[in-house]
Amino acid sequence: MSHKIAILGASGYTGAELIRLIATHPTFEIVALSGDRKAGQPMSSVYPHLRHLDLPDLVTIEDIDFSGVDLAFCALPHATSQAVIRDLPKDLKVVDLSADFRLRDPEAYARWYGGAHQALDQQAEAVYGLTEFYREEIRAARLVAGTGCNAATGQFALRPLIAAGVIDLDRIVMDLKAAASGAGRSLKEHLLFSELFENVKGYSMGGTHRHLGEFDQEFSAIAGREVRVQFTPHLIPATRGILLTNYVSGDPEAIHAALTAAYAEEVFIRVLPMGEVPQMKDVRASNFCHIGVVGDRIDGRATVVAVLDNLTKGSAGQAVQNANLMLGVEETAGLMAAPVFP
Amino acid sequence: MSHKIAILGASGYTGAELIRLIATHPTFEIVALSGDRKAGQPMSSVYPHLRHLDLPDLVTIEDIDFSGVDLAFCALPHATSQAVIRDLPKDLKVVDLSADFRLRDPEAYARWYGGAHQALDQQAEAVYGLTEFYREEIRAARLVAGTGCNAATGQFALRPLIAAGVIDLDRIVMDLKAAASGAGRSLKEHLLFSELFENVKGYSMGGTHRHLGEFDQEFSAIAGREVRVQFTPHLIPATRGILLTNYVSGDPEAIHAALTAAYAEEVFIRVLPMGEVPQMKDVRASNFCHIGVVGDRIDGRATVVAVLDNLTKGSAGQAVQNANLMLGVEETAGLMAAPVFP
Amino acid sequence: MSHKIAILGASGYTGAELIRLIATHPTFEIVALSGDRKAGQPMSSVYPHLRHLDLPDLVTIEDIDFSGVDLAFCALPHATSQAVIRDLPKDLKVVDLSADFRLRDPEAYARWYGGAHQALDQQAEAVYGLTEFYREEIRAARLVAGTGCNAATGQFALRPLIAAGVIDLDRIVMDLKAAASGAGRSLKEHLLFSELFENVKGYSMGGTHRHLGEFDQEFSAIAGREVRVQFTPHLIPATRGILLTNYVSGDPEAIHAALTAAYAEEVFIRVLPMGEVPQMKDVRASNFCHIGVVGDRIDGRATVVAVLDNLTKGSAGQAVQNANLMLGVEETAGLMAAPVFP
Amino acid sequence: MSHKIAILGASGYTGAELIRLIATHPTFEIVALSGDRKAGQPMSSVYPHLRHLDLPDLVTIEDIDFSGVDLAFCALPHATSQAVIRDLPKDLKVVDLSADFRLRDPEAYARWYGGAHQALDQQAEAVYGLTEFYREEIRAARLVAGTGCNAATGQFALRPLIAAGVIDLDRIVMDLKAAASGAGRSLKEHLLFSELFENVKGYSMGGTHRHLGEFDQEFSAIAGREVRVQFTPHLIPATRGILLTNYVSGDPEAIHAALTAAYAEEVFIRVLPMGEVPQMKDVRASNFCHIGVVGDRIDGRATVVAVLDNLTKGSAGQAVQNANLMLGVEETAGLMAAPVFP
Repeated sequence: MSHKIAILGASGYTGAELIRLIATHPTFEIVALSGDRKAGQPMSSVYPHLRHLDLPDLVTIEDIDFSGVDLAFCALPHATSQAVIRDLPKDLKVVDLSADFRLRDPEAYARWYGGAHQALDQQAEAVYGLTEFYREEIRAARLVAGTGCNAATGQFALRPLIAAGVIDLDRIVMDLKAAASGAGRSLKEHLLFSELFENVKGYSMGGTHRHLGEFDQEFSAIAGREVRVQFTPHLIPATRGILLTNYVSGDPEAIHAALTAAYAEEVFIRVLPMGEVPQMKDVRASNFCHIGVVGDRIDGRATVVAVLDNLTKGSAGQAVQNANLMLGVEETAGLMAAPVFP
Repeated sequence: MSHKIAILGASGYTGAELIRLIATHPTFEIVALSGDRKAGQPMSSVYPHLRHLDLPDLVTIEDIDFSGVDLAFCALPHATSQAVIRDLPKDLKVVDLSADFRLRDPEAYARWYGGAHQALDQQAEAVYGLTEFYREEIRAARLVAGTGCNAATGQFALRPLIAAGVIDLDRIVMDLKAAASGAGRSLKEHLLFSELFENVKGYSMGGTHRHLGEFDQEFSAIAGREVRVQFTPHLIPATRGILLTNYVSGDPEAIHAALTAAYAEEVFIRVLPMGEVPQMKDVRASNFCHIGVVGDRIDGRATVVAVLDNLTKGSAGQAVQNANLMLGVEETAGLMAAPVFP
Repeated sequence: MSHKIAILGASGYTGAELIRLIATHPTFEIVALSGDRKAGQPMSSVYPHLRHLDLPDLVTIEDIDFSGVDLAFCALPHATSQAVIRDLPKDLKVVDLSADFRLRDPEAYARWYGGAHQALDQQAEAVYGLTEFYREEIRAARLVAGTGCNAATGQFALRPLIAAGVIDLDRIVMDLKAAASGAGRSLKEHLLFSELFENVKGYSMGGTHRHLGEFDQEFSAIAGREVRVQFTPHLIPATRGILLTNYVSGDPEAIHAALTAAYAEEVFIRVLPMGEVPQMKDVRASNFCHIGVVGDRIDGRATVVAVLDNLTKGSAGQAVQNANLMLGVEETAGLMAAPVFP
Repeated sequence: MSHKIAILGASGYTGAELIRLIATHPTFEIVALSGDRKAGQPMSSVYPHLRHLDLPDLVTIEDIDFSGVDLAFCALPHATSQAVIRDLPKDLKVVDLSADFRLRDPEAYARWYGGAHQALDQQAEAVYGLTEFYREEIRAARLVAGTGCNAATGQFALRPLIAAGVIDLDRIVMDLKAAASGAGRSLKEHLLFSELFENVKGYSMGGTHRHLGEFDQEFSAIAGREVRVQFTPHLIPATRGILLTNYVSGDPEAIHAALTAAYAEEVFIRVLPMGEVPQMKDVRASNFCHIGVVGDRIDGRATVVAVLDNLTKGSAGQAVQNANLMLGVEETAGLMAAPVFP
């Protein structure tokens, strides 16, 4: 059995990560790669580390014949993605890695992304791609919206706690440390090596980061009331990885128990023994997410630390996991590689 | 005019940083350097970057004649420091960079450092070395206790807010990112390049970090009631620098105003315009501390970000600033070098 | 079909890398892991990134029952390795990752490693493990000696050129840049993060690096005369990877042709188009080696650049590749993961 | 006494480094800063680390009144610089940090830089700015051409050897490792953090790097015959610093003696004891250059290693040193800060 795969926007980091994962996938076969500005080039010019693979050259999306394609990953920039997906064949299975279909409420979309959505029909049918919590919907979906990488990390840490009612919903503080690849291969001054090296900086301060739209949507839905978290991401001098430190009010043991119960059957989410916390590097280049809980010296306070690789579990790995479900393949296919350490 | 300076424990990073700063100090002259395990070696063997300086060889403390010494910097490990300082000439001015004399209450010391203090007389006379807040006491002091580098950062950010009564004292969350040199030149597995590179990890989780003893002591004294903060330090892949993100409840404008007022006359503490935050690298290798305030989307919440270089303003720079006061030199002497960027 | 695998010395970086590779190997099953100082601990304590694997706890070598073991990887320190292997069952297949069995001549061994060999019988039977050049011998071997990671890199670049007679054997200059993990997890000052970060340093200068013993042995054998190269390794601020710049005298086109011909059928060795050179990161965490050739403005000079991952193709990957041959498994089994980029 | 200084092109890294050095210079006072694209902005917006300094806002060059200016540093891009300097007042002292006036021969300029020089009169009067070798000419010069940072490193290592006739001029191999800031603050893909981190790559391979024009000019002039070196620069994951490994044929002791003699009276150039080599970090953020020599196991071969900070001794520090000479100030003024380590 083989599944024909197209990747739209293959010249970015998530595109490259999809190819890396699919390279050892038992049933996926890449039949088309698009990269508008680099159309006509072989992939090995754009990403020489993929030189050993027999890949199709980059083409424009218009030049792809989707008739034989089983599933398309869409790794295009935000806004571009919705316009492209709107015009794809209506029966083509699609996993979108952009932000375009994450928010269900068109008004929330417009507020966080600064403009009206251009593909409301598709937005209405899109399933939110946080696999461990939307597994059945994803299995049946035609269009799955990959989550934000920060949003995934935060939800893995906090959804079970909100669902179990073990933390104070008005006192959630989330301090996130994110590696540079989350910002993609774009040419921005603060992403230059000389700027980021030996540096740490907060960004999207004060509750302005767009992934808050996902937290608002999801956490409020679980809680059955409006939940607003205080969230600050920081850019750190690393390439891959997210470490999220959550400061919560609640009983540490109950918190640990809620997480342990929620993920008892999950392959990719690992809850550490009480009192231990993961380090960012423990999941590098893998589809795993590690979570730890520590009680504070202040009674009724706890710290919940979650780590994942933004390009894998936070993006392309999640996408492959969802595609596996959509195509009826073993959910873990192509995703069991151990983290790369050191 | 010249001041004869001895540095005890010159083979560690803070020792090297003291020498770096004193190298261009207008009145300080290094007359003795101790380094027990490396006694007999020239400094250029231990730190080749100091090769151009005409420095005395390392000796044991016993071999130092303190009669002509105006001031000794003590950069020894914790616990060792108190035993050494107890036996130094009683009229010798001393700036200690260890943790040994930071806590005024012997019981608090015993609790945080796991044993009874061995130099209670000296502990009693020691002045807490946070220059901007203990300036007059330091000027008159014989023995000054350098603060913890994390403790300094947190106090620069929060003391004015506690003093002004503009934040909720029971809702302070401090998330700190610290570079590796704060842990010194010690051979520990987690400090290896291959371990820390591409990594972030929390440590002393759950309110167990010893610098909390300083926060407890100082914040409670200012507030006139017990204050307990929730504090998590993280080790980041950088050599120098601390970035501290403080999550507080209070009016952002009032918070910014309190900081601006507190530091209006300070040379080394710079409060950024409202809504701007500093990045860690902005103060590297300098004695400056930058602080910024951002209001949150949640009413009555704010984020206060402070950065400094742990080896300079957080340790050796602070020590030189205090020594300047103790010796009647211009407070900023030797400390006005601009940060190194990039 | 399943092959029972033991790893001796599993607590070092090459041990961890072996486990990472074997985790997705189709036939290898780890049945025993030794780690003398950490005997009794679960692997997840030593390497939390392997938490998701069902691995045996660490034991001492004495506690391993080798009767059911098909092959042992020996990732012990130099000198220890020969003593251990000498005492293993004589019919146990062994892939040694140490330096102990690389040099065929006992005198050469004694000269480079500073003492007489303790397992001369085993040394006599050991096959040099540079797979692409000793494939048939390895297939038939009981004991294979993994090459030095630097030695592998240099031989991949230069063996075909010496064999083809296209370069001046007396004018070979090899400038190597090596990441820190090549030095293992040992606690040495120069391997501390704060020392290596923002640094580059030459080591084993002047022709004293032990991998020169391998170059001498192999290059001289190919040339049929004594060959001595000028070789300087440099430690660079990276975790994984080697980039070797070879300066040679010869016709650039002939050099490129010799490499292209030599590796035409090789899966893991990729020769770039004439005039292109690889970057270190292009092969990270993979078993690939990329080689490029550029002619110089000076007639008759060329630069040959080779890159590989020291822990994978330079050590554990090579070891698995050799084990595959020894056990009659597909040579590439478990080794086709694409490089991790960025 | 005070000297009025203008910096043209202050928004790049060398501009920022000039300001950093001048910040503690005893006689230099910055009166004008230009930055065309950022004209109108305060320097603290472009470089927040300079926030504590009282600096003029950025203006366009046209808006600068040069009548009261004693000396202008020109830190503009190549090609732009010659057009600007051509139109400056003819009696204004200028230190140019670009490549525009380094090559004396207009044909060599055209060949290496791909076009005719636009300011031949100024090119004719320009003095090559390698201070230690052109000190008297610089003292008398109106226009000094700062050297390339790589070119400076190579000349410090090799000029004395060529002059003393102790090495084979036809067998010089120079392998250079350069940190990213040498490429400036420009937005290029290979300078992104995610690309350079955990990477090393050669560039301008095969004798195409423009600094070879300087080596050709200077080495040939010293030797009295044409000298062509084989030179490959590599980009390494660091911000500041150059480490150059020179492979030469000659007697190691004679080589060491020639270097020692040449730099016996120099403050900034330090030759290490025979057999020792410097590491890159030993001179970071300083105006020092360290050089070491090691003999090879091959008779008549040696390795000469030189390190400097590309932004300081390789560019802005050299420029200040030259300006000191041109203005009759102590040559070392503002330049004696010790290296920053770790």
